[in-house]
Amino acid sequence: MTAFKIASLDQVSSLAAVLPQSHTPSEDAARARQMQLTKPPGSLGALEDLAIFMAGWARTDRPEINTAQALVFAGNHGVCAQGVNPFPQEVTAQMVANFEHGGAAINQLCRVNGARLSVVPLDLDRPTEDFTKAPAMTADDCLAALNTGAAAVDPQADILLLGEMGIGNSTVAAALCAAVFKGAAEDWVGAGTGSDAEGIALKARVVAKGVVEHGDGAPMEVLAALGGREQAAICGATLAARAANIPVLLDGYICTAAVAPLFAADPALLDHCLVGHVSAEPGHRKLLDAMGKTPVLNFSMRLGEGTGAGLALGILRSALACHNGMATFAEAGVSGG
Amino acid sequence: MTAFKIASLDQVSSLAAVLPQSHTPSEDAARARQMQLTKPPGSLGALEDLAIFMAGWARTDRPEINTAQALVFAGNHGVCAQGVNPFPQEVTAQMVANFEHGGAAINQLCRVNGARLSVVPLDLDRPTEDFTKAPAMTADDCLAALNTGAAAVDPQADILLLGEMGIGNSTVAAALCAAVFKGAAEDWVGAGTGSDAEGIALKARVVAKGVVEHGDGAPMEVLAALGGREQAAICGATLAARAANIPVLLDGYICTAAVAPLFAADPALLDHCLVGHVSAEPGHRKLLDAMGKTPVLNFSMRLGEGTGAGLALGILRSALACHNGMATFAEAGVSGG
Repeated sequence: MTAFKIASLDQVSSLAAVLPQSHTPSEDAARARQMQLTKPPGSLGALEDLAIFMAGWARTDRPEINTAQALVFAGNHGVCAQGVNPFPQEVTAQMVANFEHGGAAINQLCRVNGARLSVVPLDLDRPTEDFTKAPAMTADDCLAALNTGAAAVDPQADILLLGEMGIGNSTVAAALCAAVFKGAAEDWVGAGTGSDAEGIALKARVVAKGVVEHGDGAPMEVLAALGGREQAAICGATLAARAANIPVLLDGYICTAAVAPLFAADPALLDHCLVGHVSAEPGHRKLLDAMGKTPVLNFSMRLGEGTGAGLALGILRSALACHNGMATFAEAGVSGG
Repeated sequence: MTAFKIASLDQVSSLAAVLPQSHTPSEDAARARQMQLTKPPGSLGALEDLAIFMAGWARTDRPEINTAQALVFAGNHGVCAQGVNPFPQEVTAQMVANFEHGGAAINQLCRVNGARLSVVPLDLDRPTEDFTKAPAMTADDCLAALNTGAAAVDPQADILLLGEMGIGNSTVAAALCAAVFKGAAEDWVGAGTGSDAEGIALKARVVAKGVVEHGDGAPMEVLAALGGREQAAICGATLAARAANIPVLLDGYICTAAVAPLFAADPALLDHCLVGHVSAEPGHRKLLDAMGKTPVLNFSMRLGEGTGAGLALGILRSALACHNGMATFAEAGVSGG
């Protein structure tokens, strides 16, 4: 298999037509299997839907998760010069070190739910441009980050979990959402890592300015102008996973906002994506509604790193354990099947 | 340690005063630890609350789940003579055999989330009385089932998951709820394993009749008159777990309704109980509201067996993995802690 590579930003919107789709016969076979298992039809609720979803992408009625890959992309953002985050920007590299030493929340969630975690820092000593003054990235910069993300995907994985780390990136997320889905900047900003009311108001002004200056281009131009390298890498990994028939578990607000430009390019580009949880960050629910995505979990989390995806992986494993491991009515000799 | 035994139905309401309480200093120490972990304070949302809850019952700031016990109690119900369930009563024993052979949903969920499952059938060939005609159980019958449930609890477990199986027992659950929390019978009945509108209306009439005939006694008299043996066993196991400082993960509607008489006797008897999920059975949300309990999960499941508890166990494991495994700001050298 030739490695998946994105040739240009312009190419992205045409990819939906050539990337693989869910395999409907496998979905149908999985749905039929659910009806034969020793339980009232439909009684496993959303677990049944998750198993059927996985079947479509795995192209078999009995999908398994043998290899779960988790990728956390990290970037730094020029917009931090506007004072949008109470933490210093050096925390991004400190947290990358924490990931590498196994001390962060995502490490524990990957361990307990069975995912192999890799952390991909993207030029942390070279923040993007401050998007209130200039486009955050050039087209070449953005394309490079897209392909770094794409190259990090293991094409043999059965599921890909995506997460991010980057001081200031809840402001970046809000800017991407406001540019793609419109509405007031205030609707898309929240406390992030811990901004107070004044900080949130500042974030809204910064987002509004960025969107006015650079929010009008084509979707992938918006990604370059307002996004960061970790957002572009998340888009690239999402597309590379699709090319390899790998379903994706997105994380929270920042991770979902990162793929908003893909949604704007073509909503079908995200057909293989689940969203692990709905974040306590208020823009996330609005974003999920706009994208027509139902989150797997809701625990009022707002940490990022891929933690919501890591937690949801355990649910997926449970869903598939029931789907694959349960006896049918005929096998168990139970009446009423 | 002398095995926990319930002396009489009358004794139950006085137990809250003598059974152990959550250890507040351990809760406080766990809460303080959460503030030092490498994440914005509060950003793990409900996972933080779950870890603090577990700390209080484990009486340590670093609670672990080494042994998770799951108990599924099964019983048969005389009220099935009223035609309240589309499945024949023999399915209870068939499903017990399915549990014993590892083919049911609860087997898969216990395996993947790390619980040791035991199934306890309670006199399946001797259904309780039809509560539209007579009290379902005598006081002695009910006490025996309570103590069967209590004796099944492993006092060394770190958490106890409770579930049930019993054709007709969504009608029993509705009767217990209507007797304890009042309201119209219609408010407490739903489709169960698959009743149609006519079947649901029949269930409501049956429940209303049972409550009028036998719903007026003291809480444990209500349990005997309208409950079944698996409901009594769930109450006994819940109390025995409390005596051994073991937190409990209740399952869905039927399992939560089973302990409604304990709530009526003294709400504090359920302080150590979490509810694994909110069921699609409409009475469950109403019941949780009445009992002031927030479910861990919501997947529109309605299977019983302990499946919602089994799924929630994975979430608890994730919560404790973060709580115990994450580095503090000081340990990781991250700024801003």
